[in-house]
Amino acid sequence: MNAEILCVGTELLLGDTVNTNAAFIARELAACGIGCYYQTVVGDNPERLKSTLEHAFSRADMVITTGGLGPTYDDLTKETVAAYFGREMVLHEESLEQLKAFFNRVGRPMAENNIKQAYMPRGATVFPNDRGTAPGLALEGNGKIVIMLPGPPREMHAMFENSALPYLRSLSNTTLVSHNIHLFGIGESALENELREYMQAHSNPTIAPYAKEGEVLLRVTASAPDKAAADALIRPVLDELCARYEQFVYGVDVGNLGNALVFALRENGRTIAVVENATGGYVSKRICDVPGSSDVFLGGICAPLDAARARLLGLAPAGAERIVASEECAMAMAVKIREITGADIGLAVAGIAEAADATEVYPQGQVCIAVSSDKLERTVTRQLAGKYADAREIIRYRGSSHALHQALKAAKA
Amino acid sequence: MNAEILCVGTELLLGDTVNTNAAFIARELAACGIGCYYQTVVGDNPERLKSTLEHAFSRADMVITTGGLGPTYDDLTKETVAAYFGREMVLHEESLEQLKAFFNRVGRPMAENNIKQAYMPRGATVFPNDRGTAPGLALEGNGKIVIMLPGPPREMHAMFENSALPYLRSLSNTTLVSHNIHLFGIGESALENELREYMQAHSNPTIAPYAKEGEVLLRVTASAPDKAAADALIRPVLDELCARYEQFVYGVDVGNLGNALVFALRENGRTIAVVENATGGYVSKRICDVPGSSDVFLGGICAPLDAARARLLGLAPAGAERIVASEECAMAMAVKIREITGADIGLAVAGIAEAADATEVYPQGQVCIAVSSDKLERTVTRQLAGKYADAREIIRYRGSSHALHQALKAAKA
Repeated sequence: MNAEILCVGTELLLGDTVNTNAAFIARELAACGIGCYYQTVVGDNPERLKSTLEHAFSRADMVITTGGLGPTYDDLTKETVAAYFGREMVLHEESLEQLKAFFNRVGRPMAENNIKQAYMPRGATVFPNDRGTAPGLALEGNGKIVIMLPGPPREMHAMFENSALPYLRSLSNTTLVSHNIHLFGIGESALENELREYMQAHSNPTIAPYAKEGEVLLRVTASAPDKAAADALIRPVLDELCARYEQFVYGVDVGNLGNALVFALRENGRTIAVVENATGGYVSKRICDVPGSSDVFLGGICAPLDAARARLLGLAPAGAERIVASEECAMAMAVKIREITGADIGLAVAGIAEAADATEVYPQGQVCIAVSSDKLERTVTRQLAGKYADAREIIRYRGSSHALHQALKAAKA
Repeated sequence: MNAEILCVGTELLLGDTVNTNAAFIARELAACGIGCYYQTVVGDNPERLKSTLEHAFSRADMVITTGGLGPTYDDLTKETVAAYFGREMVLHEESLEQLKAFFNRVGRPMAENNIKQAYMPRGATVFPNDRGTAPGLALEGNGKIVIMLPGPPREMHAMFENSALPYLRSLSNTTLVSHNIHLFGIGESALENELREYMQAHSNPTIAPYAKEGEVLLRVTASAPDKAAADALIRPVLDELCARYEQFVYGVDVGNLGNALVFALRENGRTIAVVENATGGYVSKRICDVPGSSDVFLGGICAPLDAARARLLGLAPAGAERIVASEECAMAMAVKIREITGADIGLAVAGIAEAADATEVYPQGQVCIAVSSDKLERTVTRQLAGKYADAREIIRYRGSSHALHQALKAAKA
């Protein structure tokens, strides 16, 4: 079975809204093992919508739409789809009751327009909407299936999980399971070259690399009658890849470096504190991005190097010497922040992010990282892209990735 | 003239990447006054790409593609487009030189594969890529135009601005000029309701509101033979709107709150330092996002409230009293960070972002902000969304917006 995603909305065509719905549904389809070769965006225009729908059904067994289910006159997606399937629109009493209950709950009067939302193509399976007014639906006919979902992502996500996913699963008798290996410090193309034969030799599970902001993700996906059988197919490949790339793998199914660090700290009952310069707040922010990180994060200082050392850490009188983005300086800061906060691990970054601050000895992109803990004292220097037009942002973000990666090693030590 | 957006990439079809490129290009096309009725996503598959391209050209004068310009064997977009236009691929010496220079600069050897990226359809206008290896291009033939851009957003954005936009503008003999009024503290729908008649009464310039992460942007766009004439049409409307919404307007064409703050500090020769809790690093990061911010940003502390007060600021012995997200606590921190760093303005945020930290007196989403300077001492408390599933992130981000907004008032005082 293959499907197409058809997102309806003038706000998408104008670029006022980023189409996160398409990515969400695409991921879910892939996880269900349903192929998807096209995504289309079209405005709230019945004629263009009709021709797009016909074109999509000429290539696919199923079309999943988002948007156009609203109460206003330009929301005609449901009517257009009903016409394609040759069905009349009939009042769905249950949806009308739910609409009335919804408006009752939020304390607003129901407009006459909203009644339109309770009309459904005859024979549709109705998907209730517990976060908004537009019900969704599934409709089958002539060997084709349409699934219609609302446009607002928070309504769509909930309806997908509660109604569309069970419906899709009922269509298939295989389960797809994926696991993601997260690697840091190896490039996507190097990894792809090394693994080409290995990837080609495997069809179940499949192995695919993805580059993501200076990191690589290896996705291993198996198809089997149930989850246990799929996991059994995946396990040996997962183990083999993790062993082969041990020095680069920082986690499996862990999402990102910030999560990996917070989880490792929590698991080992350790805490961390940070001083950063050159990464401009990214290290602290990426740790704080993880819900509950305040259990293990005792604080972060983000400041120009001189201010951080002199004023905030009391390491040197202000302006006493020229600012140096050195490993020694980073280590002194890591030791000091650990002392001040009482954290188990002190992490410090000293570097040059701005072209204006660079010298011959300290070029733009030089980032020194120090980690201090009772088990490990370590400094590394990385030379990050200093020649791109947006070098500053790359240095900040990638620098923070390197810092989190070093901290992770200390957390696991 | 109308255009279609065609994004090529298996990672988009699998939902691994959200298609921000389509939204970016759609906005730019709208700003150029070029109509766009369809966006399509297709994988790295030459046959499907070919049929999609033909279908797009059957409806539109211009197709803008992103992606598929990489060096690997599955990147065939350029070849497919060349075949559609009946052009052979020829080596573009200048691009080859630039590729060699690029690899030289980043200190990596150039792979044999990369040479493919310097081949262009005969007759193409080549767009250089200063952030990566894939040049882009524009190609005209049989009354149709294709513009091909790389997939990675940072490469695409720069190339669009530097090459595609001047090219698009050269196709038209009218100039579109837009100015953006940035507002904070008013909702999009309230603004839209208030301005409906005013917007309908204006057709040149047009006025359109856009909601953006808790802020609203009013875009005023005029079309005229040249920039001066367009600006003359815009000026009275811009002035009128800025006066009408004076209390909400924080800048014109300023991009975001972080920029507005850094510019205002620089203009008034003032500096700032920050202590934040509940906003989890966002305040410092959003200030550091602005290039050159280290001139005016003397440092930020991001820490759990107790650790910030006791260990990092020396305001109270650790664990001496229950953590309180109060205005008094925020003001004490703002005064102290100003004292420590010698900054003109001290900014502090104390609040409750995690549901687990909430009490009846201090509910989740309560955020207290204090600003201390020689001209102004001010505290405010905001109750931010505490009921959504993603409340923690909303509180962090919106809380940081409120803090930046308060700091901006102090910077201008």
